[in-house]
Amino acid sequence: MGEFELIRRFFDRGPARRSPLGIGDDCALIAPREHGQIAVTSDVLVEGRHFFPDVAPFDLGHKSLAVNLSDLAAMGAEPFGFLLSVSLPGADEAWLGSFAEGLFALADRHGCELLGGDTTAGPLSIAITAFGHVPAGAALRRDGAQPGDDLWVSGEIGGPSWAVGERYAGRGAALGSGLVARLDRPEPRIALGIELRHLASAAIDLSDGLLGDLGHIVDRSRVGAEIDEAVLPVSMQLAAVSPERAIEQALSGGDDYELLFSAPPENRAAIGALGRRLNLPLTRIGRIRDGASIVVLDARGRPRARLPRSHEHFG
Amino acid sequence: MGEFELIRRFFDRGPARRSPLGIGDDCALIAPREHGQIAVTSDVLVEGRHFFPDVAPFDLGHKSLAVNLSDLAAMGAEPFGFLLSVSLPGADEAWLGSFAEGLFALADRHGCELLGGDTTAGPLSIAITAFGHVPAGAALRRDGAQPGDDLWVSGEIGGPSWAVGERYAGRGAALGSGLVARLDRPEPRIALGIELRHLASAAIDLSDGLLGDLGHIVDRSRVGAEIDEAVLPVSMQLAAVSPERAIEQALSGGDDYELLFSAPPENRAAIGALGRRLNLPLTRIGRIRDGASIVVLDARGRPRARLPRSHEHFG
Repeated sequence: MGEFELIRRFFDRGPARRSPLGIGDDCALIAPREHGQIAVTSDVLVEGRHFFPDVAPFDLGHKSLAVNLSDLAAMGAEPFGFLLSVSLPGADEAWLGSFAEGLFALADRHGCELLGGDTTAGPLSIAITAFGHVPAGAALRRDGAQPGDDLWVSGEIGGPSWAVGERYAGRGAALGSGLVARLDRPEPRIALGIELRHLASAAIDLSDGLLGDLGHIVDRSRVGAEIDEAVLPVSMQLAAVSPERAIEQALSGGDDYELLFSAPPENRAAIGALGRRLNLPLTRIGRIRDGASIVVLDARGRPRARLPRSHEHFG
Repeated sequence: MGEFELIRRFFDRGPARRSPLGIGDDCALIAPREHGQIAVTSDVLVEGRHFFPDVAPFDLGHKSLAVNLSDLAAMGAEPFGFLLSVSLPGADEAWLGSFAEGLFALADRHGCELLGGDTTAGPLSIAITAFGHVPAGAALRRDGAQPGDDLWVSGEIGGPSWAVGERYAGRGAALGSGLVARLDRPEPRIALGIELRHLASAAIDLSDGLLGDLGHIVDRSRVGAEIDEAVLPVSMQLAAVSPERAIEQALSGGDDYELLFSAPPENRAAIGALGRRLNLPLTRIGRIRDGASIVVLDARGRPRARLPRSHEHFG
């Protein structure tokens, strides 16, 4: 099966509704909305680095797109399309069919169409570039956090990174299905991001871990931050591990794909109502402060002497 | 050197003029022009497949972007930005410095700014997504060729693919510097593509070889085509090989990164003047016909019985 046959069989779904041209030309064409901007993000997933060689192709299809949609969510953008570049050691039809199924199941739920891409022979890697609309000036950036703002996080955190460790240790088969789903098929928080355009002052998605990603907000906004560890929404699945280990996982684990955002205190009630409407827990975990450092306060309000993982942003 | 340090040292050149946000957020933001569309293309270059492991990093930086800009040229788009995702086995500073130098030298010549991207550890591969502006409705597509149109090609063809073969055969050191430059640092035909918006009926860039790429125009436009092999602008560097071999290379070799386009006969004079203005040979190599097949005519106007490489588009 050659490149063109492969594209036709698994990835060509006819003219894209949101592109003036569809796939199969030198470029894809995007028609922007009036007074709109285009948010664009690109992530490459490489075998052995971002996924295990025996990953289920359905899950890989889902996750390759999900990590990109999560970036769009963190900008408050509404996804509309993506480019897919795959490097494949060979053309295994069953594998490709399942990969495409996982990919398009997620894409379709978010109205996100394949606009073009590229296939090549090589070590397995998936590069996706995803596009979203955002009204001019409305994008959620990392640099808008203000001292006095609350710090919020969506969903639960810490479980997926712990699950990765369990898999590395050969205990993956014992993981619960809920946790496996969270790790392998994360749900990008698109609806939340769009609603936060008018409520949040800064946002980022949690891919590198809470402290690391908060570091980016702190750095870009030139502020400091405090986290109350007692209120962190630690994944229920971590109930079996020690509380100290669970907190560390929530602070420094990655792969959560939840949104971390800051918002002025006057928006608390609106954010609470939003969480209920979306049926998604939104937890106020701390606050933005003057300065440049991140402090984690224990249950008695004392700063932790040592943070789980050192990070260049930590003062 | 970690990911962020690597980005800062080699790829962060401060706020982008053409992006409302610059690099370093979850997404890049693009502000479209009024009444404009965005052309977008993505190509991945993988070691061993698209370049030799000992490629000069300056050339790899140039070529990774050039193949994408060539796609923009073939759409008549004006480049303004790109995303860069690199997978690197390690962070070799000299290598990265030279790669960035080659990349930005080409980018700067075309006003094309780095808007964001991604770095990861893994087998060497370079994925670039490039963006260009094009007025709504003005993009050069593959599906606009009409029976009766002339068929044109820019520059010279056949040399780069022959040079690849010489390298594979261990005779790369004997290649002339002009040919090496054409292969390793191809010049995307941006200015030509922009000028052709009002002159050409269809266009494509030559990456897979003349017959293969003409096959895409023929297929998408639902037409046939005739090529006069005697007038093909075969690379001067092929003077040393047999005429038959040179013609085959021009017909079926790839890696030319010239533009192949169709245009109504009434535009001949304007296209001739354009070639002189750009100091770029534009050669009329044949015509678009009814039907669905590609015919190559020899010097006496007789159809070649056998085409150099069979292709599913050939009837």
